[in-house]
Amino acid sequence: MSRPPTSRDLARMAGVSQATVSRVLTNSPKVTAETRERVLQVLKDANYTPNALARAMKTGRTDTIGVFMTRVTSPFHAELLDEIGRVLSSMGLHMILWNIEHDQEETIAEVLQQRFVDGFLLTSATYDSKLHTMALASGTPTVLLHRGIDGLDCDQVVGDNWQGAYDAGRYLVDHGHTDIGLVTLTHTGNTSRDRDLGFRAALADAGVKIKPGNVVSVDVPHSAGHAAAIKLLSRKKPPTAIYAVTDLLAFGVLDGARARGARVPDDVWVVGFDNTEMAAWEAFDLTTVDQPVHGIVETGIQLLRDRINDPDRPTEVVTLPCPLAIRGSTANRH
Amino acid sequence: MSRPPTSRDLARMAGVSQATVSRVLTNSPKVTAETRERVLQVLKDANYTPNALARAMKTGRTDTIGVFMTRVTSPFHAELLDEIGRVLSSMGLHMILWNIEHDQEETIAEVLQQRFVDGFLLTSATYDSKLHTMALASGTPTVLLHRGIDGLDCDQVVGDNWQGAYDAGRYLVDHGHTDIGLVTLTHTGNTSRDRDLGFRAALADAGVKIKPGNVVSVDVPHSAGHAAAIKLLSRKKPPTAIYAVTDLLAFGVLDGARARGARVPDDVWVVGFDNTEMAAWEAFDLTTVDQPVHGIVETGIQLLRDRINDPDRPTEVVTLPCPLAIRGSTANRH
Repeated sequence: MSRPPTSRDLARMAGVSQATVSRVLTNSPKVTAETRERVLQVLKDANYTPNALARAMKTGRTDTIGVFMTRVTSPFHAELLDEIGRVLSSMGLHMILWNIEHDQEETIAEVLQQRFVDGFLLTSATYDSKLHTMALASGTPTVLLHRGIDGLDCDQVVGDNWQGAYDAGRYLVDHGHTDIGLVTLTHTGNTSRDRDLGFRAALADAGVKIKPGNVVSVDVPHSAGHAAAIKLLSRKKPPTAIYAVTDLLAFGVLDGARARGARVPDDVWVVGFDNTEMAAWEAFDLTTVDQPVHGIVETGIQLLRDRINDPDRPTEVVTLPCPLAIRGSTANRH
Repeated sequence: MSRPPTSRDLARMAGVSQATVSRVLTNSPKVTAETRERVLQVLKDANYTPNALARAMKTGRTDTIGVFMTRVTSPFHAELLDEIGRVLSSMGLHMILWNIEHDQEETIAEVLQQRFVDGFLLTSATYDSKLHTMALASGTPTVLLHRGIDGLDCDQVVGDNWQGAYDAGRYLVDHGHTDIGLVTLTHTGNTSRDRDLGFRAALADAGVKIKPGNVVSVDVPHSAGHAAAIKLLSRKKPPTAIYAVTDLLAFGVLDGARARGARVPDDVWVVGFDNTEMAAWEAFDLTTVDQPVHGIVETGIQLLRDRINDPDRPTEVVTLPCPLAIRGSTANRH
């Protein structure tokens, strides 16, 4: 037959019910040895692909990687997820995706103990989460992607958030800005921390002080960037440039400026961090620090495969450069 | 101990190597009965969570659902994926994600035969793909979500794309538009087909003809919507309203209008389809047809669970209404 045989076809050929075929495939004890043998012979004759579970039991490998992620609706995370899927597929690996926003910590602990996968990729490690320690304690090979944990004895591949942020700050200072707004996240992870500290360091090195009222600490969504922009642009003397630690926040800042009637870049420059595809759209035309998504993902998955094949190899921490991408939200073009 | 035991801990407690623990966990025949028993006793004493693979072999259930999807970087698909993850997690189910853009058809055929999962959710069924027929032939319970296939004997949950598009067309006509642009996709799936035909039907019912030069057939990305807008707005007599069959295309249309210096809604109205979160951002403020993502996902996953529990139940096709969400891209506010 041209199409692959269904369990119905196989049942007919073996002269048994579909339920019996299913019992054989799942190694149920409720099947006699004779029936089992007859069904297995039919499967063999039909070139039936071996049950992945049975193969996994035999080899101890599932060819499946578990990915822990947050906020797939955020443009950067969607791009990261897309790239992870692309690279895993190109290597013949499957992806189990867990969204750690949705899953309870107990569920995750159970998952980590189940060794359903050959390895874990964690894209959202934070200092206040036990996920990475649980993952490492489970004994399953684990790599941190995109967001690292300082000093953790674990393979990690991250962008150089500090340097990228420093360059963004330096760029604003070099173009004469001295009254600068900072839209920053509560620091639970390395990414937001370094994007904040690197930026402040550039200003400090240039002798530019950030006014306390020019710093707004916010939550992750677009609406938070929007509110921050309204707040900053409502000051008696609004800043002439605003840097937000993610593109999503910067899109919110641009929309807040729009709502407030402030022109970008004539009245205020706006800089983000991520260089998502959307940053290049006319609606935003955003100057932003580029995250090397492809390099982060490809390097991280390679490290994970190396770790799976050699659990005792020394851990590696790889940091990739994050260059500034300059667009219309900062370049006065009149 | 407070943390879960690692395979190293277990090995120490059983007085064997880590490799031996691993062999026991994967049912390797290379372990003596005595050693196996000792290791299993240690596992039991340590309340070690049973190996998911072993459990799956025993029950024939993996508690895992396979999701086939395209373009997770498109805002609508990201929201759909996020919702699928949320609902599966709330039911204690895991998600294996395959991106059918990245995987070869042979890989997918193999995946379908491996019965690694209890069921499949297909979100991007098209007439020129064999995926849904392969999924059904595999004997694994399958539900089509978001995009259906007419007359296919398979559970399906879709939005009423035709009626939503009809209402969008009717809305433009009711507000006096007679020169209307249509940015449409090549029809490989029900969604784009019905969003095109429903819209045309509304105009035909109102006696409004669409000029052939006002119809632009495009590919999916933002840049395609952008190019379509430039084309339509460059006509000697540009249309006074443009309807695009997805929000992503409509964002491109809005950006094309921006590039062209056309004011929305003063010079041209723009209407999309999906009602993604981004549609409400100031940058777009897009009137669009709402897809009931939550209802589609929740109903679809419930149908899949019903199908898993009772493979012989009659198939169901559920169609949910898609109401129009009116925003600033159509409401003249001056």
